Amino acid sequence: MKPSKKRIAILGSTGSIGQQTIDIVRANPDRLQVEVLTAQNNADLLIEQAIAFEPNTVVVGEEKYKHVKEALQKHDIKVFTGADALCHVVQMETVDIVLAAIVGFAGLRSTIAAIEAGKPVALANKETLVVAGALVTALAKEKGVNIYPVDSEHSAIFQCLAGEFHNKIEKIYLTASGGPFRGKDKKFLASVTKAEALKHPNWSMGAKITIDSATMMNKGLEIIEAGWLFNLKPEQIDVIIHPQSIIHSLVQFEDGSMKAQMGLPDMKLPIQYALFYPQRVASTFKRFDFAAYPSLTFEKPDAQNFPAIQLAYDAMKKGGNLPCVLNAANEIAVSAFLNDEIGFNDISAVVEKCMLKVNYIAQPTLQDYLDSDAEARKEASSLAKKKIPL
Amino acid sequence: MKPSKKRIAILGSTGSIGQQTIDIVRANPDRLQVEVLTAQNNADLLIEQAIAFEPNTVVVGEEKYKHVKEALQKHDIKVFTGADALCHVVQMETVDIVLAAIVGFAGLRSTIAAIEAGKPVALANKETLVVAGALVTALAKEKGVNIYPVDSEHSAIFQCLAGEFHNKIEKIYLTASGGPFRGKDKKFLASVTKAEALKHPNWSMGAKITIDSATMMNKGLEIIEAGWLFNLKPEQIDVIIHPQSIIHSLVQFEDGSMKAQMGLPDMKLPIQYALFYPQRVASTFKRFDFAAYPSLTFEKPDAQNFPAIQLAYDAMKKGGNLPCVLNAANEIAVSAFLNDEIGFNDISAVVEKCMLKVNYIAQPTLQDYLDSDAEARKEASSLAKKKIPL
Repeated sequence: MKPSKKRIAILGSTGSIGQQTIDIVRANPDRLQVEVLTAQNNADLLIEQAIAFEPNTVVVGEEKYKHVKEALQKHDIKVFTGADALCHVVQMETVDIVLAAIVGFAGLRSTIAAIEAGKPVALANKETLVVAGALVTALAKEKGVNIYPVDSEHSAIFQCLAGEFHNKIEKIYLTASGGPFRGKDKKFLASVTKAEALKHPNWSMGAKITIDSATMMNKGLEIIEAGWLFNLKPEQIDVIIHPQSIIHSLVQFEDGSMKAQMGLPDMKLPIQYALFYPQRVASTFKRFDFAAYPSLTFEKPDAQNFPAIQLAYDAMKKGGNLPCVLNAANEIAVSAFLNDEIGFNDISAVVEKCMLKVNYIAQPTLQDYLDSDAEARKEASSLAKKKIPL
Repeated sequence: MKPSKKRIAILGSTGSIGQQTIDIVRANPDRLQVEVLTAQNNADLLIEQAIAFEPNTVVVGEEKYKHVKEALQKHDIKVFTGADALCHVVQMETVDIVLAAIVGFAGLRSTIAAIEAGKPVALANKETLVVAGALVTALAKEKGVNIYPVDSEHSAIFQCLAGEFHNKIEKIYLTASGGPFRGKDKKFLASVTKAEALKHPNWSMGAKITIDSATMMNKGLEIIEAGWLFNLKPEQIDVIIHPQSIIHSLVQFEDGSMKAQMGLPDMKLPIQYALFYPQRVASTFKRFDFAAYPSLTFEKPDAQNFPAIQLAYDAMKKGGNLPCVLNAANEIAVSAFLNDEIGFNDISAVVEKCMLKVNYIAQPTLQDYLDSDAEARKEASSLAKKKIPL
């Protein structure tokens, strides 16, 4: 019997995660069918994907709407634009699962819309949980919707928890490569360029997440994300630097036993796991070979020179709108760094100052999140523009 | 609500595994109750355990029967001796689970008796599956009996398979410390003493298994055991030397993802896991700390100087009574080495010669196993006594 196809909405199909998801669809034509594709700017790739996979609908940023609409006019594919359209398409009857890979805060509304409609979400957009974890997890619980993590670390934890959901987690370790500047001090970091920061040793990813890996803020965001996904307190989450990125994360249970998920760094594996869970599907992904990794090493994160992890713990502990503020300020600061407006160390400095400045709200509504996000962005932009030592 | 107690028969209660099982019972008085204790020679410890835990029945070797009987006469504890008594007590109505930790071939009959009676078995006696895996696994299937592995490696695989039983295993890696003589060559090995061979770098175990670890035959036996436990072909089982003994073994699934179970080397954890599966019970076992293990290393086994692994693969591939012959010859050879009758390299040489000499039987009955075992022992003893270079 042929398995029935899962119909998938890929939000952010032209990004790194989106393209790798497309690869998985291509490798599993009997199991997956593209129903929706969305992209902000990369019209040419979106058009190419749409022609290849003939989705029901595509959604594209306003600037590229006309171009895409014209290019697809001879195809039986609907073309929309705008944030409301994004929220609408994920709720379509014909969508079985939503791969949420829109980068940053922009991915929040569409993810919530998917959960509202009872659609399972393969979540690559970590900001959804960082910013509004309380709201999103409560909604998912209410709607009985499963959220499948796509981040390699959270997928690792999720894989280790298969068959263990009745057992208590004592703690988890999120592994971190340490990024391109592991071992460097603040003096060195003060003068690094964006080109240097964009060279990640192990993972090929988008620009924003690559800079976040260099500052360690990516790990900070993952700590907060893990807290919501696995219902953990900050003190149950530890970070360990593992430069080879082979062990993707670990769980320690209350009997003291630890389980780790391992493999070569390849995002296709966690994406595929999220799409087919609980079934594992045969793949041709390159296999790990111990001969190529005679030594797996571990060290403590350097809190002195990479303050982002501590900022994230602080935001998580205080809760409310602080993780939202941390995330928004970081998005602006990373963008300013990529525009050569501020230095590398300034990224964390901007985030820290914004966390002190923006009004604290203990139990925010969705509107409060939107307001805090806007306020933090304004504050961060203003700080970044001052160009004084932060 | 208080959980109901599991009533346990501990076969081999005075050995290393048996004593650690007693420790677990002591730590979990609300969950476990000792129903049966058995030992061969260590009467004093058996008596001490019996007085402390008041089992229904104890079984002891004939030489110590009178002594134990007298010592326990004022207690409400039945005392028996003999192989038939062993087989009888595991089948008692009041036994909920059997911890099978009798060393060597001697453990086979009582394990089979337990399965016959439908009792779940926590299996520390690897010879049961090495010698008679086809027979034992078929019987367990027929009786609907679960066999829970206690060996740390097989427990690791078993833990990694929780929630994954529907997914195909591509391969497994059994980790091996490499023993005290890792990196040494045959010339060096020719003159090692039993005192040196008994110094295992990571695990505190009985003498037989410690020598088996030094020759790598322990890993060979584990390969065969893993084949039966997890229904794997020889080419799906790999061995990797991991001197720190932190990763206890790994599974690779057909999507390429790997899962590992890790922790400090402590047999209590796998014993406890086997007794309470699928529940993990809180423990005070010392936790693993990455700071103490900044590097986990891996290397290929040295087939040239440690031929035992290849002998086990050969026995597994040919099947029939060959694993039984391998095991019997090895027991005699290890015993001869411990009696200073043969050298270290002679252990594998004796095993290899016996595998060539003893009559091959493709589909042995239980009687055939008993006969092959006896024939191999006789042959191995004769070889060991010749004292010519083997």
